[in-house]
Amino acid sequence: MNKLALVAGLLAVLSQASAWGQDAQARGSAAPKVILIIGDGMDQQQITIARDYLAGYDGRLTLDTLPVRSSVQIQTLAEEDPRVPEYVADSANTATSMATGIVTSAGRIGTTAGTDLDVATIMELAAAAGLGTGIVTTSSVTDATPASFVAHVSNRLCEGPRSMAAGGNCPADLKANGGKGSIAEQIAASRVDVVLGGGERYFAQVAEGETKRTVRDLAAANGFRVIGTAAELASLKPGGKVLGLFAPSTMPVQWRGAGGAQAERVKHDESGRALLPEPFPCEPNPDYGATPPLAAMTRAALAHLDRRAFVLMIESASIDKQSHVRRPCGQIGELKQLDDTLKLVLEYAAAHPETLVLVTADHSQAAQLVPETSWLAGMNAASPGYFARIRTPEGAIMGVNYATNDSTLQEDHTGADVPLFAYGAEANEIPATVRQTDIFRIMMRHLGLKAPSAGP
Amino acid sequence: MNKLALVAGLLAVLSQASAWGQDAQARGSAAPKVILIIGDGMDQQQITIARDYLAGYDGRLTLDTLPVRSSVQIQTLAEEDPRVPEYVADSANTATSMATGIVTSAGRIGTTAGTDLDVATIMELAAAAGLGTGIVTTSSVTDATPASFVAHVSNRLCEGPRSMAAGGNCPADLKANGGKGSIAEQIAASRVDVVLGGGERYFAQVAEGETKRTVRDLAAANGFRVIGTAAELASLKPGGKVLGLFAPSTMPVQWRGAGGAQAERVKHDESGRALLPEPFPCEPNPDYGATPPLAAMTRAALAHLDRRAFVLMIESASIDKQSHVRRPCGQIGELKQLDDTLKLVLEYAAAHPETLVLVTADHSQAAQLVPETSWLAGMNAASPGYFARIRTPEGAIMGVNYATNDSTLQEDHTGADVPLFAYGAEANEIPATVRQTDIFRIMMRHLGLKAPSAGP
Repeated sequence: MNKLALVAGLLAVLSQASAWGQDAQARGSAAPKVILIIGDGMDQQQITIARDYLAGYDGRLTLDTLPVRSSVQIQTLAEEDPRVPEYVADSANTATSMATGIVTSAGRIGTTAGTDLDVATIMELAAAAGLGTGIVTTSSVTDATPASFVAHVSNRLCEGPRSMAAGGNCPADLKANGGKGSIAEQIAASRVDVVLGGGERYFAQVAEGETKRTVRDLAAANGFRVIGTAAELASLKPGGKVLGLFAPSTMPVQWRGAGGAQAERVKHDESGRALLPEPFPCEPNPDYGATPPLAAMTRAALAHLDRRAFVLMIESASIDKQSHVRRPCGQIGELKQLDDTLKLVLEYAAAHPETLVLVTADHSQAAQLVPETSWLAGMNAASPGYFARIRTPEGAIMGVNYATNDSTLQEDHTGADVPLFAYGAEANEIPATVRQTDIFRIMMRHLGLKAPSAGP
Repeated sequence: MNKLALVAGLLAVLSQASAWGQDAQARGSAAPKVILIIGDGMDQQQITIARDYLAGYDGRLTLDTLPVRSSVQIQTLAEEDPRVPEYVADSANTATSMATGIVTSAGRIGTTAGTDLDVATIMELAAAAGLGTGIVTTSSVTDATPASFVAHVSNRLCEGPRSMAAGGNCPADLKANGGKGSIAEQIAASRVDVVLGGGERYFAQVAEGETKRTVRDLAAANGFRVIGTAAELASLKPGGKVLGLFAPSTMPVQWRGAGGAQAERVKHDESGRALLPEPFPCEPNPDYGATPPLAAMTRAALAHLDRRAFVLMIESASIDKQSHVRRPCGQIGELKQLDDTLKLVLEYAAAHPETLVLVTADHSQAAQLVPETSWLAGMNAASPGYFARIRTPEGAIMGVNYATNDSTLQEDHTGADVPLFAYGAEANEIPATVRQTDIFRIMMRHLGLKAPSAGP
């Protein structure tokens, strides 16, 4: 069929901006499209650290070329008393704000603080209106950010049926108790057209109330083609629903510190002198293997949704995860994935002027760009936390500090506003300061959708 | 004279926005005006901390209402090899970038990295073109930020003649060696129309090459009326040059933690349990006394410059200084001063559409908004640095962390981009990401000034 031939041709030249343009002209339609790119934990410290490494102190990321910038107030309510705020968020309540337009408590996925009511997500509203929907992430597709666009549970930990079993986290969400089941089960039952990322292990679990059938089986029964390799992704033909699971859980990151180096605690010699860690450059992560990059998954998702109005959420998840575990090169490589993906998305949007591109973060993170030696180094001052010195390609050394807590395990999030970048016809209408819930409304307006008038 | 009567009337009603409007209409002129407000160290962590305290988690600062936001790449070169960058700046090289359009090394005031050449500042170029110029700051007027707009020395520490004496920091800047003398002496010799802030002690020093005459005497001989009290400021009549010195050095801050509370190191009991510091609210600083607020100094400076084209730099200096010494309420109160001043400036600009208002920071700072208890508190995790828990007016608790180094003295700066907010006719032309040197060019263009074609 002509349609299939056109799509095949499109896939072949997908990396050329002109291809999108030719297709857009051939189509002549203007179905509104929203592409929301979320860099998990991607605050301004993270962006500057990545820019200094990837582009140099005088260079620019693709991110920096976006024409409109706003700042996003991050809002969280206390579960115990939702009239009172908390000032630092997690990825569940923040993604819920973007996906549903409400403010909720930390850990909640698509549900209200205190009262545990489900709130319709933009993907559910879009699907109900006949629009295309898609989720692409480098985390498990059941992780908090993607989950919030399609599922409703009281606790983000309820990723698969096993975590829902007796003594689990979300008793009210068990199907047996009238709930919708785990996040994986809700994805399997969903109308989302394309879901690409990690998290295969949650779909391999036996579904609640079944003796043998896995969540993956339920997804297949609901019309999902389930794929699991980069080769399958590359040869994907549009049409139908696709669930791509390319890693057991979070996908591996592209970069690491040379030889596996990461931030470490500063040691002191007997005289109290600070012995700073040796500087190291970044290098490819040997564990990355044949993992499909975020840009490749995005390309496939765009091809899958291309001819319709759609909303597509793309998450670069490990900026946050690598910052939690104090791995600056992991963060930088993951932000590079986002930036590479954004380049592709901007080519697509340039050829499809009906596209609104938003790039934002969900919350701020611990990592700080600091002097590679403290200004009080002469008095033996050095980081009290975990510290790395990165050797940059332009021949300088960058200090990265992680010191929000003294645990050996993981850093805390921080509470600063995050950036919002925008591209597209309506981008200029976005105010210079917005609340995170406004992102929901901006997307809904562009798609011509109305939120249900009855509040939660 | 009618002119004096109008000015007197203006002074009487200066706090009412309508007064500015009436005057602008009466004048009918459109002399371009630039008002640059610098929050020293005012990064997005600082803004969010202050907003959460001052306006609440759902509230807005005046800052948040500005229509345009950009992000500023902060650039610093190594003194030893100016081809190589450093990734964290100080207030001297960053203010020099804004004042002159060049990138230089840390500690330098209006001079080039490595080669120590003087570079013309926007205030010097504006004065030479017959425009009005003004500096208002809560620091000493000789401190790095204001100094960079009017002086040229190799080291920011050369604030007065005493620090220039034998064995001092800037031998080449001594008048005896063909230099221009200390920062205070350069201010005294300058053409700036209005200089208001702290730093009286540098002007009380005997000037280089003099036996009795102080720097203040030199200023008076150069036509400056020298004032030193809030009462003198309030009764100031426009005309001539004014030097207002309202504190020996940095002006006191308006707020402090209740009872003097500030961030402290987290203690642990014998079982290793973290004993978090008690939460405290902010309160007025009893040492503030009759110090004129930043808004009062700004009001006087605007009245002084009002009828001309002008460039006015206003600095809220102690956001940085209070963050260095881990005093969150000091930061918040100082950012409130900036926000109060911005309100006044926006009223002025609304009545004078020929005004471009820019609000930015020079560099990022150490303070981080963190959870008031770590997400790993159950494992005894707590800040490894200095930590405060602030009780906010809306009934919640905010954690503020300072952990860039383990010194008992002061924190380090951080290297993230800072925000740039803009208001005025040309604000929309500012790209979403700029370099700090672009701020110089944006201001010069608005004023219709050209930088000397010969480079430094």
